[in-house]
Amino acid sequence: MYPRAAEGWPRLASKAVRPHFGGQEPNFRVVTLLEPSKKQMILYLEQEHRGQPITEIPTRYARVQVMVKGSRDENQLFELTVDLDSDKVVQKQHHKGKHCYIDSDYMQAVEKACLANENVQAELGTLELPPEATVVVEAWAYATDGMNDMTERLTMCWFYMRLLDNVDANYYAYPLDVCAEVSESLQVTKIYRLPAKPSERINQEKRPYDRRKMHSAAASEYHPNLRPSPRTTTKPYQVVQPDGPSFRSEGNRVEWENWSFRVGFNYREGLTLHDIRHHGRSLFYRLSLSEMFVPYGDPRAPYARKAAFDLGNDGAGINANNLRLGCDCLGAIAYFDAHHNTPAGEPMKLPNVVCCHEQDDGILWKHTNFRTKNPVVARSRVLVLQTIITVSNYEYILAWHFGQDASILYEVRATGILSTVPIDLDVEEKVPYGTVVAPGVLAPYHQHLFSLRIDPAIDGHTNSLVVEESTPLPINDPAVHNPFGIGYITEQKMIEEEGGFDLDFTKNRTFKLINESKINPITGTPVGFKLLPFYSQKLLSHPSSFHAKRSEFGSHAVWVTRYHDGDLFPAGKYTMQSMGGDGLASAIARRRETRTAESVRDQDIVIWHTFGSTHNPRIEDWPVMPSEKLTVGLKPVNFFAGNPGLDVAPATQDKNKSVLYVGDEGNRK
Amino acid sequence: MYPRAAEGWPRLASKAVRPHFGGQEPNFRVVTLLEPSKKQMILYLEQEHRGQPITEIPTRYARVQVMVKGSRDENQLFELTVDLDSDKVVQKQHHKGKHCYIDSDYMQAVEKACLANENVQAELGTLELPPEATVVVEAWAYATDGMNDMTERLTMCWFYMRLLDNVDANYYAYPLDVCAEVSESLQVTKIYRLPAKPSERINQEKRPYDRRKMHSAAASEYHPNLRPSPRTTTKPYQVVQPDGPSFRSEGNRVEWENWSFRVGFNYREGLTLHDIRHHGRSLFYRLSLSEMFVPYGDPRAPYARKAAFDLGNDGAGINANNLRLGCDCLGAIAYFDAHHNTPAGEPMKLPNVVCCHEQDDGILWKHTNFRTKNPVVARSRVLVLQTIITVSNYEYILAWHFGQDASILYEVRATGILSTVPIDLDVEEKVPYGTVVAPGVLAPYHQHLFSLRIDPAIDGHTNSLVVEESTPLPINDPAVHNPFGIGYITEQKMIEEEGGFDLDFTKNRTFKLINESKINPITGTPVGFKLLPFYSQKLLSHPSSFHAKRSEFGSHAVWVTRYHDGDLFPAGKYTMQSMGGDGLASAIARRRETRTAESVRDQDIVIWHTFGSTHNPRIEDWPVMPSEKLTVGLKPVNFFAGNPGLDVAPATQDKNKSVLYVGDEGNRK
Repeated sequence: MYPRAAEGWPRLASKAVRPHFGGQEPNFRVVTLLEPSKKQMILYLEQEHRGQPITEIPTRYARVQVMVKGSRDENQLFELTVDLDSDKVVQKQHHKGKHCYIDSDYMQAVEKACLANENVQAELGTLELPPEATVVVEAWAYATDGMNDMTERLTMCWFYMRLLDNVDANYYAYPLDVCAEVSESLQVTKIYRLPAKPSERINQEKRPYDRRKMHSAAASEYHPNLRPSPRTTTKPYQVVQPDGPSFRSEGNRVEWENWSFRVGFNYREGLTLHDIRHHGRSLFYRLSLSEMFVPYGDPRAPYARKAAFDLGNDGAGINANNLRLGCDCLGAIAYFDAHHNTPAGEPMKLPNVVCCHEQDDGILWKHTNFRTKNPVVARSRVLVLQTIITVSNYEYILAWHFGQDASILYEVRATGILSTVPIDLDVEEKVPYGTVVAPGVLAPYHQHLFSLRIDPAIDGHTNSLVVEESTPLPINDPAVHNPFGIGYITEQKMIEEEGGFDLDFTKNRTFKLINESKINPITGTPVGFKLLPFYSQKLLSHPSSFHAKRSEFGSHAVWVTRYHDGDLFPAGKYTMQSMGGDGLASAIARRRETRTAESVRDQDIVIWHTFGSTHNPRIEDWPVMPSEKLTVGLKPVNFFAGNPGLDVAPATQDKNKSVLYVGDEGNRK
Repeated sequence: MYPRAAEGWPRLASKAVRPHFGGQEPNFRVVTLLEPSKKQMILYLEQEHRGQPITEIPTRYARVQVMVKGSRDENQLFELTVDLDSDKVVQKQHHKGKHCYIDSDYMQAVEKACLANENVQAELGTLELPPEATVVVEAWAYATDGMNDMTERLTMCWFYMRLLDNVDANYYAYPLDVCAEVSESLQVTKIYRLPAKPSERINQEKRPYDRRKMHSAAASEYHPNLRPSPRTTTKPYQVVQPDGPSFRSEGNRVEWENWSFRVGFNYREGLTLHDIRHHGRSLFYRLSLSEMFVPYGDPRAPYARKAAFDLGNDGAGINANNLRLGCDCLGAIAYFDAHHNTPAGEPMKLPNVVCCHEQDDGILWKHTNFRTKNPVVARSRVLVLQTIITVSNYEYILAWHFGQDASILYEVRATGILSTVPIDLDVEEKVPYGTVVAPGVLAPYHQHLFSLRIDPAIDGHTNSLVVEESTPLPINDPAVHNPFGIGYITEQKMIEEEGGFDLDFTKNRTFKLINESKINPITGTPVGFKLLPFYSQKLLSHPSSFHAKRSEFGSHAVWVTRYHDGDLFPAGKYTMQSMGGDGLASAIARRRETRTAESVRDQDIVIWHTFGSTHNPRIEDWPVMPSEKLTVGLKPVNFFAGNPGLDVAPATQDKNKSVLYVGDEGNRK
């Protein structure tokens, strides 16, 4: 995956960085290859695809992020660039007041410090928990709410308990009415009780734990060791590919059914795709999930502090699951490993973080000639590149689906366990911002806002964004021929300037990426791909809130910007405890103000699609949530000369070997 | 499927009907069992589910539709009800001015008559077609445009040609610039040339066929016999179920993974589902696709006449494909036959019109405990009930998906061949209401509007529709606690009266079917299911147009009505050449005017979801269209006590037997 990993460059980069911190051993947070400039890559890729001798990228650089202690023991964040030819640091930047993404070692230290604190223990004592209880602390990065000095890291500690003597017991089923705040230097700075009723504020009353909340494990456990025997009605279902898969992979390059692309991976975005082509024709330069924001809607303090940037704060790469054969997919599976680094700057393998496999997807196309009754049916095969991330309680299954119809779908499945808070068992008021999923357990409403970054290269790197709507023709307009009142047309508007735009299905509003200089010879229109958006509510937080300022991408569904190397993050590069103003909207506004704004028409552009879900939990999401699917697509529109899957062989029983089921007896013919 | 089919009741019903037409042999269009009243069925089903002795439905009736010639040789439509105990006609209605659904024998006669007509031949002669051309006539039911007397059937004849000497050649690739109209009595009443340019009206100029339009078959054929060899890169992919499927079917009853339901089928709606239960708890009384309207957007005469009610005019049942093993699905498949009748009133088998099989659907739920790193993953199995219909050029793949999470999805795939019209090859003007998909071939814009009829029985037959929105809490309102500006809540509005409603994803507007008298003991809220709508544009035709008047359901996305036996069709019972005013909106308005309107709150109600696509063709839809998916869902919301798929056994490689792919060499371990 990292082509020069074998050369040991991460170690060399760390070594080059060390002397720049005066003997203090830095905490290496990131040691990664800097992606070459697009200018360099275009030349490289064109040569590669033309089979020409390749001009190697002249110098590769490592990007290194470290944390070191400052004079007042505070953490300081530095980013350095290391020339990997000379092993020299060529740039060193101090990102003052910025915080690095979550350090899991530190978070564990926070939990320990919190539990070891006498005052915390005293507070827990007032709960009068049952003797079998094991208290569990869940440490969350503090989401800016305007109540704290932002120069220091602050960690929120939420409390739960396990009643079963099993480390896999679902402690989210027993949230406790205690909260603590821990400082950068691991001091417990505040301890307080949580609000227990919808109308309550932060509570000082030292109520004991209400033992009626100690509902049985049967309804709250998901781990098979803690559950009754599972159902046995689901019979085995196996995918057999007697001739192996239809894809080929070599290194990070994948080829399948006229598609080719490269697989990338980094600690933050996780899976990325590069140089996506179909029949050798360029479609996309880079596709990535660029950010995800998960704000909770409970208005009461301290819950505004629950709002996670799951990529910027946590990292989709570093939290990627080690996928297992026969569990996360069926059939013939290829796995990709990735690499990150240890705090000491040593390479660290992330095994099986991406899997690649095929799926049958029903019928690709069918037609029965009604005169001859002859059917022809082609089945749809899909190539799936999947990665799964765990962010504390939650899971996201993130998958790119390539189709034989030359479409690309990006499917998100949200699963895992709801984050819970305590609620008064006797509450008579309705809770209008949460669902009671178990006795005394509130699953608060929240949103998931994803930003999908689409860097197009539709038949080349100069592309335009056009917004098309389907509009009825006017009636009773003498200049318009619409005698029956049934005519409708499409109208196009070219986007000239950077900005954010909204969806409108009532107008069939369609966002198309086109290449204005490449005209489809048959349709007479520019070649293009359209976005199949996922219709979802925008950020519900007020524009004046920190949530809104920190997640600017949440205010529109489709953004277009000019391409700039390294401009990958729609909520800014450093999201931990960010103050806002680092996102897409601010960057666009700054370019406008400073008159560096440039046209986005017929230029190298980037599209950012914001989508997500307003997740008001159902009890059916408890104790582990059935996957909720969110799907975005990219589909050719007058790009090809016809159906790209026309030459897929018709389906036959000879190859597919289905089995006729003729009833209960199990006899088949 | 028809439990008493063996008794020969259709033949007896026809026999009972014959004497009522004074010696004239009727054309039997429909001989079907009348569904019993819901009142009778509720009793029956409750007894069945409780294992009590069953009170059989006292009398079953056949519904018979016939056409007979009137005194002026015109067709007259009658509907009769036959008591199947006494073989007596108990009701006979003359539906004056109404037309029966399309009679394929008649349509073939129209085609023949048209081609045999001297004037038609003379007109075709002026086209100076190449000698190898075979002219094909495609007869379409006339869509009301206000230009014709509606008491007679009128058929539009569109002309195409085949250049290859093969009956499966795709003649839609060569639309001809001629149009004819044929009367009820098979007279050709009009012949004219079609408009050739966007600005043109019906054309009288006798232009010869432009031979530059005679593009090669390679780009326009889909049949494998007429195509180069297909790709061989797609390796076999088989679904193996060593212990057979997980479902059981007996007669028309299906049981699977806590679900149970009955499969129905009729000539018009095709596949219907009845008495859908989960763990024995009632969810839906009846689910059906109730109508589909396909209007074309080309404003020029005569194209307003292209607007098909694919259920009311054509019939989803009578046009259902005979499904084939190994082609239309994979794995262990059960098929259902259905029955219709011949014009002589004899039973006619429709073999394999529904298939039932399972699919793997990726991950149902997953969680990895980040402390122990222990993952648990359950795979999702789906039960699919599928039917596929061919309506002339087009195919619709219609499938109900049942999930282990207790959700039901209805998936429509649109495929088949675009309906085409001729266009001037040299057209310099852009065509704003169509796409040129081949030289001289225009695929006009059109819409597909579906109406899904949902007859709920959520824990009983008295249900309510509630509209819920997610709304930000106000800021700066002293009465509201929202100090950080991030709070949001849900607000519910109960629907009290029949009517149509619109979608609004910007408010996360959610339509929930609830049972107000059944409160979930944990969440404290009424049990319910929510609609997962498909966001799509409404009908684009002007409200004053015949299209709009005839397809009233197209003006709103969600309708609610009180349940009435036999009220199954949102565009009226007789859609052929209908004049409008027979649809949902008119029925509701009439009930309001006549003060027979009743509350829809806590009543037996029906929900109708209108969804579809504004299909502005892409060249990638040519010559056969890759499936376009439209999906609607029904999902429990606080109906159960937790995740209904919690007890699905975790996935294991032991059962799933996946295969590791380790590279090009094809060696696997």
